[in-house]
Amino acid sequence: MAFAETFKALSDPVRRKILELLKEGPLSAGDIGSHFDMTGATISYHLKLLEQADLIFGRKEKNFIYYQLNTSVLEEIMLWISTLKGGGQDAENT
Amino acid sequence: MAFAETFKALSDPVRRKILELLKEGPLSAGDIGSHFDMTGATISYHLKLLEQADLIFGRKEKNFIYYQLNTSVLEEIMLWISTLKGGGQDAENT
Repeated sequence: MAFAETFKALSDPVRRKILELLKEGPLSAGDIGSHFDMTGATISYHLKLLEQADLIFGRKEKNFIYYQLNTSVLEEIMLWISTLKGGGQDAENT
Repeated sequence: MAFAETFKALSDPVRRKILELLKEGPLSAGDIGSHFDMTGATISYHLKLLEQADLIFGRKEKNFIYYQLNTSVLEEIMLWISTLKGGGQDAENT
């Protein structure tokens, strides 16, 4: 569990948008790139950071790699956040 | 909602530990600093970043500022993550 890398990966809006695209199912780098006005190299860079952060993983199918969300890391983040909130001390945001 | 700042703030282990300390209730900067081998200035720097990211807020009480978790931002993060997971596409991590 490398939360540093995970949260760093999540701090970028392009990478968050990639995750949002993947929530509908696996996509190739080309599919993902078609949603951005960016070079393939830039998309690959973002995909690599997301993979290193364990937020996505690629699966080779014929000549393409399809990327999909790694929901187990998303679960870990939610679990960590919920332990913070579970301290019985709710902030008063009125 | 500035997720960039929030996730960047969460990417640091010291700041995550500060949040974990605060889950038991509000603490002053001095209370927090006693858990780290760091100068007061460094602790203040981390508290400032957490405040800018809306993860904590300070409340003045007599001569001290007590910091506490802002659970509403934690809720927003959990909500965003849960929308990712809610796409009906679970990753297969076997």
